[in-house]
Amino acid sequence: MAAQKLVLSEDRFFDPNPRQRDVARHLYSLVAHLPLISPHGHVDPRMFADPDYSFGSPADLFIIPDHYVFRMLYSQGIPLEELGIPRRDGGPVENDHRRIWQRFAENFYLFRGTPTGIWLKQEFRDVFGVDVMLDGETAQDIYDHIMARLSRPEYRPRTLFERFNIEVLCTTDKATSSLEHHQAIRESGWSGRVLPTFRPDDVTLIDRPDWRQNIALLAERTGLDIHDYRTYIQALEQQRAFFKRMGARATDHATRTPYCERLSDREAEAIFQRALRGEASAEDARRFAGHMIVENARMSIEDGLVMQWHVGAYRNHNPLIYERFGPDKGADIPVATEWTRHMRPLLDAYGNDTRLRLILFTLDESTYSRELAPLVGHYPALRLGPPWWFYDSLNGMRRYFDRVMETAGIYNTVGFNDDTRAFPSIPARHDVWRRASSNWLAGLVVRGIIDLEEAEEMVTQMAYTLAKESYRLGE
Amino acid sequence: MAAQKLVLSEDRFFDPNPRQRDVARHLYSLVAHLPLISPHGHVDPRMFADPDYSFGSPADLFIIPDHYVFRMLYSQGIPLEELGIPRRDGGPVENDHRRIWQRFAENFYLFRGTPTGIWLKQEFRDVFGVDVMLDGETAQDIYDHIMARLSRPEYRPRTLFERFNIEVLCTTDKATSSLEHHQAIRESGWSGRVLPTFRPDDVTLIDRPDWRQNIALLAERTGLDIHDYRTYIQALEQQRAFFKRMGARATDHATRTPYCERLSDREAEAIFQRALRGEASAEDARRFAGHMIVENARMSIEDGLVMQWHVGAYRNHNPLIYERFGPDKGADIPVATEWTRHMRPLLDAYGNDTRLRLILFTLDESTYSRELAPLVGHYPALRLGPPWWFYDSLNGMRRYFDRVMETAGIYNTVGFNDDTRAFPSIPARHDVWRRASSNWLAGLVVRGIIDLEEAEEMVTQMAYTLAKESYRLGE
Amino acid sequence: MAAQKLVLSEDRFFDPNPRQRDVARHLYSLVAHLPLISPHGHVDPRMFADPDYSFGSPADLFIIPDHYVFRMLYSQGIPLEELGIPRRDGGPVENDHRRIWQRFAENFYLFRGTPTGIWLKQEFRDVFGVDVMLDGETAQDIYDHIMARLSRPEYRPRTLFERFNIEVLCTTDKATSSLEHHQAIRESGWSGRVLPTFRPDDVTLIDRPDWRQNIALLAERTGLDIHDYRTYIQALEQQRAFFKRMGARATDHATRTPYCERLSDREAEAIFQRALRGEASAEDARRFAGHMIVENARMSIEDGLVMQWHVGAYRNHNPLIYERFGPDKGADIPVATEWTRHMRPLLDAYGNDTRLRLILFTLDESTYSRELAPLVGHYPALRLGPPWWFYDSLNGMRRYFDRVMETAGIYNTVGFNDDTRAFPSIPARHDVWRRASSNWLAGLVVRGIIDLEEAEEMVTQMAYTLAKESYRLGE
Repeated sequence: MAAQKLVLSEDRFFDPNPRQRDVARHLYSLVAHLPLISPHGHVDPRMFADPDYSFGSPADLFIIPDHYVFRMLYSQGIPLEELGIPRRDGGPVENDHRRIWQRFAENFYLFRGTPTGIWLKQEFRDVFGVDVMLDGETAQDIYDHIMARLSRPEYRPRTLFERFNIEVLCTTDKATSSLEHHQAIRESGWSGRVLPTFRPDDVTLIDRPDWRQNIALLAERTGLDIHDYRTYIQALEQQRAFFKRMGARATDHATRTPYCERLSDREAEAIFQRALRGEASAEDARRFAGHMIVENARMSIEDGLVMQWHVGAYRNHNPLIYERFGPDKGADIPVATEWTRHMRPLLDAYGNDTRLRLILFTLDESTYSRELAPLVGHYPALRLGPPWWFYDSLNGMRRYFDRVMETAGIYNTVGFNDDTRAFPSIPARHDVWRRASSNWLAGLVVRGIIDLEEAEEMVTQMAYTLAKESYRLGE
Repeated sequence: MAAQKLVLSEDRFFDPNPRQRDVARHLYSLVAHLPLISPHGHVDPRMFADPDYSFGSPADLFIIPDHYVFRMLYSQGIPLEELGIPRRDGGPVENDHRRIWQRFAENFYLFRGTPTGIWLKQEFRDVFGVDVMLDGETAQDIYDHIMARLSRPEYRPRTLFERFNIEVLCTTDKATSSLEHHQAIRESGWSGRVLPTFRPDDVTLIDRPDWRQNIALLAERTGLDIHDYRTYIQALEQQRAFFKRMGARATDHATRTPYCERLSDREAEAIFQRALRGEASAEDARRFAGHMIVENARMSIEDGLVMQWHVGAYRNHNPLIYERFGPDKGADIPVATEWTRHMRPLLDAYGNDTRLRLILFTLDESTYSRELAPLVGHYPALRLGPPWWFYDSLNGMRRYFDRVMETAGIYNTVGFNDDTRAFPSIPARHDVWRRASSNWLAGLVVRGIIDLEEAEEMVTQMAYTLAKESYRLGE
Repeated sequence: MAAQKLVLSEDRFFDPNPRQRDVARHLYSLVAHLPLISPHGHVDPRMFADPDYSFGSPADLFIIPDHYVFRMLYSQGIPLEELGIPRRDGGPVENDHRRIWQRFAENFYLFRGTPTGIWLKQEFRDVFGVDVMLDGETAQDIYDHIMARLSRPEYRPRTLFERFNIEVLCTTDKATSSLEHHQAIRESGWSGRVLPTFRPDDVTLIDRPDWRQNIALLAERTGLDIHDYRTYIQALEQQRAFFKRMGARATDHATRTPYCERLSDREAEAIFQRALRGEASAEDARRFAGHMIVENARMSIEDGLVMQWHVGAYRNHNPLIYERFGPDKGADIPVATEWTRHMRPLLDAYGNDTRLRLILFTLDESTYSRELAPLVGHYPALRLGPPWWFYDSLNGMRRYFDRVMETAGIYNTVGFNDDTRAFPSIPARHDVWRRASSNWLAGLVVRGIIDLEEAEEMVTQMAYTLAKESYRLGE
């Protein structure tokens, strides 16, 4: 049987109505080739620090590190061990990458209609020149083909970065990071713009098992003796300043709920001391986390770092998977989120301060129209981030446009984030957003809601300008 | 540079599919010119009491009183003072209306794709004859143009009322109102039908800071000595009767949650006495509010006033704005709402009573299909109001049609409410609803779900009849 | 006036875009005539046990047993007594079926645009050969027409079963059932495949008023002396084995919330003893219900019965209706549902066990994308059931496809359930699903998201294979 051709329509994701499709095609043509702004993501900066960095095998690149991929296979009963996911205890897992790839290929049909399927098909074709559909029959040929490409110099990360036309890529880095890879990139003379982002969760969430070690590390990085709340805050401020000197434009924070609270210095100190002694309660942790969000907003006002807040993931929902394989293994499940009441303490303090830019991300789409659009459509300090994680998809974008934009307008949103670990998927992800935006705006044009001139200006904002300006990347 | 023309497509808001568009156009043609029924809104009756009432400047008309407009500008960092919003303390605000208008015009692009943008464009063109797009360049010319129109006699509110073909307009009036403007309208001999609506929140929500003053005012209006729960209820009933004699067809109630409770007379009395002494707790206020909803339902059964309940706004979310500028300044944010459990006490008492008509309005769209459509699709006393506030928009209507109608049918809904303070926006708002309804029904026709004859009957119901009959306005 | 013709478009429910419609029509042609798999529903097995079973009058068939129908009439103020709904106390209700039918016909317009309207029109035309629209004028002619058909042998349930091309029909049966009708079907030699489903709610929910009687009945059925938790579990296991021998492939469980808890044997015993003494508290009932869900999952792992869990109905919301007419009278209202936290105890125990198949059904659509798709897209033991009850509709299906499939993929879903008591509506219900699936997949094809070949395979899965395999009906 001849292999099925891998075909990607030039008009993909556009409405089949000819008028809307034509307008969408026109709008897309204006932005398809604009540079990519990637203000938030999880690409490992190491790959740009070493000019000879290699992605390894196709399984190393596409399967083993990507929980979007292996969680779907796992849901259908394929053990993670058979996909080569490393065990925490170093126990045996499949290490024949051809067998892993074969298993993946035989189950590639599971991704039909999913964003992962869309991204992978586009990566296969556009980045690696694959022209047949991946399945059990074609698996080994495609493996060989990709393997051969990966060995070529033009498949080094820096070269791909340039080929992808990335203007700026922001990584996400622990507050305690030495930023050594970023330092190496700067010193290498390579012109790619790769910036760090300050992510302090490891030192602000006192119920993390390794919190005290992280505080010790923070002390080491900053040279400060962190023995009380005051020196702790000082260390955070100092490390933020270090990140800023290293090019950071933003911070990032992740919590399960958007709980905020402003503790008095005395309360903060008392909880901090209990945490240092390993005696903090769950309630202490909750309150301190809420307080540190407010406190980081205060710091952002002072140092100008844009603040990002990702809320609503119940991390490590599956203890068996967590114990055996660790975090970020496709077992994070969203929970319902309440913003209106929870955000009051932060907004009372800083919501009217135009120096603060706080970008919110949700995993609860029911809050788009009910809470988030009204909030960002009123408070000058707030902006709404793009559809996140499970909603970084065609339908997710459509729902976001439909539920957010009428109340917030596009100018209270911040364009796109690819938010990915999977570096070669970045162009495909931006392409989905650019096509989806073009199609949405075309729908407004053909329904007489906006003019074509307005749509042309808006599509550029959504594809490029809003991200750049919202994250202060042009400054 | 030539100014961009302000063009409104005759087929605006219709689907681009030619078959659906043609059916939509046909259905719309049946209702486009029907009289407007406005059973709920916030237009000031004063403007019809005085035959020479003038709207003032374009800023007075379009910006200063309209929180839909200025909250968007505020969200982008423009201080309310610079938009001429009056301060409570009488402090200085911009009073050059040309400068306010210029600021608004330069930022009019923020409203692209929003309902406010849609209404304003249609008002500018259809009510004021503006034919270019508002922006920084055209601002002053348009200001002059509108100012000139506003000075003409045909721009007096009564004349516009007739030109707009309004059959009936219901205002919203405090329970303590003397209805003096309604009295003046009746005595003036003008034939426009403007009816009051009884809104007792100020005297039923005992945690309002001015509750005791309102009770004193209620006593004055009714001539009753309100010293206990019994006389309080008597005063409310008497004032309802007064509103009814003045033409009222409905009452209106607004609470943050749909909490209901039936207090015993003894409990009600005890809470009422504590409230009179200024000693009521938050819990007292919550229970008394829930009780008064049930009690007003009882009164509605007796006097036949249709009952409206608007639930889910967290009012005055931004204390800085509230302290400086007061309520209704664009800082009201929705909260998640639970109807199924909360409504039990009221429904247990009166849900099966066909004499009660209770119209529900929500700011939590997740309850449309989950709770509200099943509730109104079962209880004879319940009807569902149209999409409210943030959802009075094309997408809001589409979601409402999609999520409500399959379970409730259109006959358990009540047509449209414009719910606006902005009198000149009324035709544009009804036009959006009529176009959206026509387009939705056309979609059902071209998908073979209903016949054209059915759609023709339904579109008239949705545009006119359901509102008139639901609010007993034909009686 | 000539009666309006009852016309059903051959392209009904397809998108009006010609390209999408053509693909949809093609996909539909592949599945329109596939046998029907009905793995979950409430058809009375009695109708297949007796070869001469008759449906009675049109009112007996279409109105009196169908709460989807009469709740809509009730919502518009028609008393259930006038529709012939039997009263618990045997009090008088309308027994002239022609008058009941007339009342229904005059109000048939209420069902415009509702799934009930769609099903009824298709049943009238395709099952009964009615060719005019039902209304007050045509009511009696249609009554006569259907009555005449019902008296013919080809309108016996077994004959219709064959004509409908039903491959397998699963009923829902109390855990205490003797399955006498299923026994009679097996012994009759008739080849129709009608299988029981084990529904133990009556013996696992200890707050049911008749729980102790049900336990006595369970003891009688099993011949066991149920005096403690151990014998209770033994009786359940024994009865599950009996159902399995009688052909059951699945169990079914219904609770208001998805609360799960794993009690120790001692705690379970203590609560069970309190329940036997009639002394169990509401908290006992809640905990025991949650425990029995986990315990049934354990049994499913052992005996291989597929587990279904229907969550989120607030049953018997209207006490007046419940007292007068009993359960299942259109007064069940959904409530918001939280899965992520609630399911933890069950998933911790068995979520990774591929022997368990637990199919979840929700009445809270906000959980589709937020909780359920991520859960079934990770845990091997979980699958997601089709849109249920109020959402078994064109829009309900569209929302389900849009919100579930991108994250879960179709292979973590289980095709369609008709879930109906109304046997003659089964083909119409499957037809809506098959058309809706075809149209959805066609939308993916014309947008370039999947290929036509993929869509052809997927539409067969959705119409037939997924249901058969998910419920282990091919085994």
